[in-house]
Amino acid sequence: MLAMPLMAMAAEVSSPSGNVQLKFYLDNGGRPTYEMSYKGRPVVLPSHLGLELARDKHASAGMDETDLMAGFQIADEQTTEFDETWQPVWGETKDIRNHYREYAVTLIRQWRSAPPVVGPGNPQLAPRQHLRNIVIRFRVYDEGIGLRYEFPQQQELNYFLIREERTEFRMAGDHTAWWLPGDYDTQEQETQQSKLSEIRQRFREAVNWGNSSVAVFSETGVQTALQMKSDDGLYINIHEAACADYATMHLELVDEQTKALTTELQGASNAYTPNPLPSAYPLPQPFTFVSHLTPDATGLKGAMQTPCQTPWRTVMVSDDARDMLSSNLILNLNEPCALDDTSWIHPTKYCGVWWEMIVGKSQWSYTWDYPSVYLSNIDYSKCKPNGRHGANNEKVKRYIDFAAKNGLDEVLVEGWNVGWEDWANMWKRDVFDFVTAYPDFDIKMLNEYAHSKGVRLLMHHETSSSTQNYERHMEQAFQLMNKYGYDAVKTGYVGDIIPRGDHHYSQSMNNHYLYVVKEAAKHHIMVNAHEATRPTGLCRTYPNLVGNESARGTEYEAFGGSRPDHTCILPFTRLQGGPMDYTPGIFVTRLSEWSDNDSWARITICGSLALYLTMYSPLQMAADLPEHYERFDDAFQFIRDVACDWDESIYLEAEPADYITVARKAKGTNNWFIGGKCDEQGHQSVIKLDFLDKGRKYDCTIYADAKDAHYETNPQAYVITKRVVKQGDKLKLNEAPGGGVAISLMARE
Amino acid sequence: MLAMPLMAMAAEVSSPSGNVQLKFYLDNGGRPTYEMSYKGRPVVLPSHLGLELARDKHASAGMDETDLMAGFQIADEQTTEFDETWQPVWGETKDIRNHYREYAVTLIRQWRSAPPVVGPGNPQLAPRQHLRNIVIRFRVYDEGIGLRYEFPQQQELNYFLIREERTEFRMAGDHTAWWLPGDYDTQEQETQQSKLSEIRQRFREAVNWGNSSVAVFSETGVQTALQMKSDDGLYINIHEAACADYATMHLELVDEQTKALTTELQGASNAYTPNPLPSAYPLPQPFTFVSHLTPDATGLKGAMQTPCQTPWRTVMVSDDARDMLSSNLILNLNEPCALDDTSWIHPTKYCGVWWEMIVGKSQWSYTWDYPSVYLSNIDYSKCKPNGRHGANNEKVKRYIDFAAKNGLDEVLVEGWNVGWEDWANMWKRDVFDFVTAYPDFDIKMLNEYAHSKGVRLLMHHETSSSTQNYERHMEQAFQLMNKYGYDAVKTGYVGDIIPRGDHHYSQSMNNHYLYVVKEAAKHHIMVNAHEATRPTGLCRTYPNLVGNESARGTEYEAFGGSRPDHTCILPFTRLQGGPMDYTPGIFVTRLSEWSDNDSWARITICGSLALYLTMYSPLQMAADLPEHYERFDDAFQFIRDVACDWDESIYLEAEPADYITVARKAKGTNNWFIGGKCDEQGHQSVIKLDFLDKGRKYDCTIYADAKDAHYETNPQAYVITKRVVKQGDKLKLNEAPGGGVAISLMARE
Repeated sequence: MLAMPLMAMAAEVSSPSGNVQLKFYLDNGGRPTYEMSYKGRPVVLPSHLGLELARDKHASAGMDETDLMAGFQIADEQTTEFDETWQPVWGETKDIRNHYREYAVTLIRQWRSAPPVVGPGNPQLAPRQHLRNIVIRFRVYDEGIGLRYEFPQQQELNYFLIREERTEFRMAGDHTAWWLPGDYDTQEQETQQSKLSEIRQRFREAVNWGNSSVAVFSETGVQTALQMKSDDGLYINIHEAACADYATMHLELVDEQTKALTTELQGASNAYTPNPLPSAYPLPQPFTFVSHLTPDATGLKGAMQTPCQTPWRTVMVSDDARDMLSSNLILNLNEPCALDDTSWIHPTKYCGVWWEMIVGKSQWSYTWDYPSVYLSNIDYSKCKPNGRHGANNEKVKRYIDFAAKNGLDEVLVEGWNVGWEDWANMWKRDVFDFVTAYPDFDIKMLNEYAHSKGVRLLMHHETSSSTQNYERHMEQAFQLMNKYGYDAVKTGYVGDIIPRGDHHYSQSMNNHYLYVVKEAAKHHIMVNAHEATRPTGLCRTYPNLVGNESARGTEYEAFGGSRPDHTCILPFTRLQGGPMDYTPGIFVTRLSEWSDNDSWARITICGSLALYLTMYSPLQMAADLPEHYERFDDAFQFIRDVACDWDESIYLEAEPADYITVARKAKGTNNWFIGGKCDEQGHQSVIKLDFLDKGRKYDCTIYADAKDAHYETNPQAYVITKRVVKQGDKLKLNEAPGGGVAISLMARE
Repeated sequence: MLAMPLMAMAAEVSSPSGNVQLKFYLDNGGRPTYEMSYKGRPVVLPSHLGLELARDKHASAGMDETDLMAGFQIADEQTTEFDETWQPVWGETKDIRNHYREYAVTLIRQWRSAPPVVGPGNPQLAPRQHLRNIVIRFRVYDEGIGLRYEFPQQQELNYFLIREERTEFRMAGDHTAWWLPGDYDTQEQETQQSKLSEIRQRFREAVNWGNSSVAVFSETGVQTALQMKSDDGLYINIHEAACADYATMHLELVDEQTKALTTELQGASNAYTPNPLPSAYPLPQPFTFVSHLTPDATGLKGAMQTPCQTPWRTVMVSDDARDMLSSNLILNLNEPCALDDTSWIHPTKYCGVWWEMIVGKSQWSYTWDYPSVYLSNIDYSKCKPNGRHGANNEKVKRYIDFAAKNGLDEVLVEGWNVGWEDWANMWKRDVFDFVTAYPDFDIKMLNEYAHSKGVRLLMHHETSSSTQNYERHMEQAFQLMNKYGYDAVKTGYVGDIIPRGDHHYSQSMNNHYLYVVKEAAKHHIMVNAHEATRPTGLCRTYPNLVGNESARGTEYEAFGGSRPDHTCILPFTRLQGGPMDYTPGIFVTRLSEWSDNDSWARITICGSLALYLTMYSPLQMAADLPEHYERFDDAFQFIRDVACDWDESIYLEAEPADYITVARKAKGTNNWFIGGKCDEQGHQSVIKLDFLDKGRKYDCTIYADAKDAHYETNPQAYVITKRVVKQGDKLKLNEAPGGGVAISLMARE
């Protein structure tokens, strides 16, 4: 038996204001248990914490114990308070306050080796007492909590494999949830709105089975950040923070029909080995979410070395939806900036040779000569061009001219490098080299041309998810970027992961994404990773991670379209972990006007303008074609004017899937910008300008939907109004169905 | 239906001398079938050829046909002859003749799409006719055949996944075989000698289950090169040539007990999903070997892009065992040298700080301070040294001095770089950085010291099978080697492969090994890869691949020992594909004489000397300690003298597992060396020196086992005799049990 004194008391910790209350204790079986409340109302009912380890074939005798679920005793407790204000390299506000109370409990677990066969040859196998300890750390904020598991370095927990993490979040009722089907390889589904009890019946129709990446695992599996609202008006959000070298977490809901965690989902395109709870443990109560990590190719969830820790599991809560958007809880739970020099990192507005390819009017590829392409065997200069290649010198110069004229910083060019003839879903390892341009893309000339006009090109590295190939070429690819003056790269991870059997959100892939960010930082390169795992605030630590896609972006407007409320949900869900390269700005929403694509974007022009405010990102694209912006140059003035880095942000109105209105003060200026975006219902409101400087006058330009504007029937109807305003003035705002409003407030003097 | 004329005749092709006969035809079901005979005696009875593809989730409608087994028609046939003599960069002979008759048959397979559900929305799904073609190419040599599948680029066979290759080799009788258990991750078992019909009952005892890498898949699965001998004295060997970016082949024997290909092997440490033959096909006849490829993490065997081909499947045959050793069939089936400049590649004799660590007297690691090590967190200069670290300045200088004094070219140093405290079987990705030396290894000083004495250090990169980590650091590691003047690296792949779920001999790993060789060539670095896949003659194409381990090497003499006949088998099996870094030269065979290790090597000193001839390699180690060689300096003279590159080689005597005697003429000289190695029975013979130059006199030194020498009781008893010999003289040779003989013949004038 252990000699040190053991404590059995329950701990209670309040947030600094007292709004959030956390309780922790061991239940009768020694299972770690926590509860959480907000202003006295339950948020998380008693929920267990723990992990199952996997039996490793290399484990030494007596060390194959896999239970980190129960049988714990408390060995130590520490409660502390922390209050600090820090400045992000870029962000929604100049200062971020990180104020929490912390409770760290050290738990020990003792067990005896199974009785071995003892003989003269193996006296070392005599049964003996073993001991492990872990720490569970809670941080309690006024707007929620973070909790994580920590594994100190110790003889009996050194290297270990995770079979599953079993962190529970037992909800207090049948909340409304905005959810995506839990999936190991895609995050690009449309958000579902339903009661928790309806998830199972809605699940199959929620999956876009036509997406070749679909890898769902449970009929109640959902992704984070998961936004919920209780019947009595509490907003609750579950996500994670600082997910580095650990598998991305999904949540599996226990409902009345749940028989086991996890049953195989019949019909799923990727086979999955069920991972039931050990039979020793009863199923959690209905309305409990249980963590479900993304597996590696062998079905396991993590290979760990102590000392180490899991990401933070976060539960945000408020009775005001705006707090869900203004909270910095996720960023605060990440580590401070790890880069010594961040002077080369800058918010960026850009346009690009991209939308016309997404729509299908031009191509990434250069030739149609070959049914398949070996990069090493083909001389592209001798191929017959297909005449549709988008990334050609003439077109890129046109975009550079447009960017220079309109104050855009960079020009993205996709399809500049050889290999696009066959690149996706081929299980093709050596798919791109990231350094060889097509014959009609003169990389030296175009970069020099851009630089002469004060513009940079923005690099594109589609990896086709062949991560081994990308890692083999990355250093040379970054050297090429340095040579020609690129300072940012958009990466892509379309299709199945190579090495085969791995998934987009596994521990190994999460390590890869961060490896790329770190290597890029050595070259002073900013990264905007598409199809990579959903962010968890790592941009605080590595601020050259300026963007991610990791959700359904504007490209889907060319793939059948997204619902009008889509962008009123994303800030509550996807954006909790970091900015999204949503690529807004579609002015000509009926694609058939200029292409063979009959998709259409369900948004008005003013709705598009509003996204530059409501979808916060330091990287903002003007995604439509230059000629489309030239047709609506008076509206485009807002995109020319709008900032993408801020000293202050005030969420004025918010309701998930309905509307969001935000005012932001541009970095280092006295200018403000306001954006309001609404769903298919339209939105009307009166905004009081009490955040403006007292005594200062502002030239106010309002880009508003016309009275008869409508995302379907009349999306290009807008009215631009100019007036002078001051602190305390009120603005009456009208947003059409699927529309929005955008306002610039330029300070006089 | 296809319009082109189809041929139905059987083809017969003879080797240039007529000794080997090949027959090819389609059977009634359109299955490709071949037969092979030698001097009229059957070698391969009628055997099928074919592959099964896997259904890919991305296959377009109608393109999910997976059968490449039957239903073929012959569309074209080509028979040609080829005769060329080429010069290897290094080798057993100066010239190699490549003389064969070739037969290439183009096979087409047509099928109709399954009837689809046709509707207004999917008219493109109407059933239609499909067509694929493949080529099977045979090369018929006087000492055997090679055959391979080729997949031309075509619309209906572009990218594809291999479920299994089903190449059959139906043996004509119950031959004696020298076999290793088929295994996805280790080749380091002792060879079994048994009848084919005894493999199943011998299988479990043939597996060293204590080896943590064991991943066997079938109770009749064996490795190649598989050496056999028929009851009527035919020597038959099955292997493969030019295995690049394709999974390594095993063979699964169909015997009377076979119920299905492949049944899961209960008790194997790695789970394996059985891969039975499609039910449409009957089991092959008993005594048929069927190819079985190494799977990737998902259980599939290959991801291919046309145009492409499989490796050559080889069947060597002769009625004289010596032809098995002198044949260049495997090298000839490989592509010519792909390197423009090979001037930097050189055969090498070396010693190293290695054996004392293998034996356990010193350590690779530097400190015992930590239960686990994070390279990024530890300052080794502040650690407490364990006092056992082998790769220290003083010791390395001692080895450099020894090498310089004795004409050895290089000194291997293992354990020079940080991370050896915990490196194997931990699932630890970031295990080594390959550039940071331990504090007591002054890399600059030691290289300068070595160079000042005309010696180089030989680099060591143990990857711990964390291939992702190695590929991330490789370029920097090679740059470090260039900086300090290393020109060769010994790599290692101990433990489980990372990425998890992959195997040592999979397509992906075979690609990795060759990737390393190619990248090394760019840096003028020679590679000697341990635990990598068994070689298949790729050293012809990439002659900087100067060695491989890929079998049970001398290290096992410290792990319990190997049988005395072990080195009389390896040249017939493992060495068919390329040289082995066997690390011979153990003089003090009782390890307990100088360490706590009670293993002992089952060989006499003269047996050890003989290995420098009988185990051909351009890379030869003097593996024992300098002080041991100094004790037997007169015997060590042979190691000082012996060459490791040759103009000519004559196998004088050979019988698998019994004895091998070979004479070799040292490159660019008139000197000859003879080595004879025998099993536990001893061996006596009379060698006639008719290969010497007429009229020339030679100073002959014979290193022979003493009369009472014996590998167990008297291994260090030898007699050195000097005399002058000339062409036609006879030498009477006596080899003790587990012994051998070594002879130098130094030409006068």
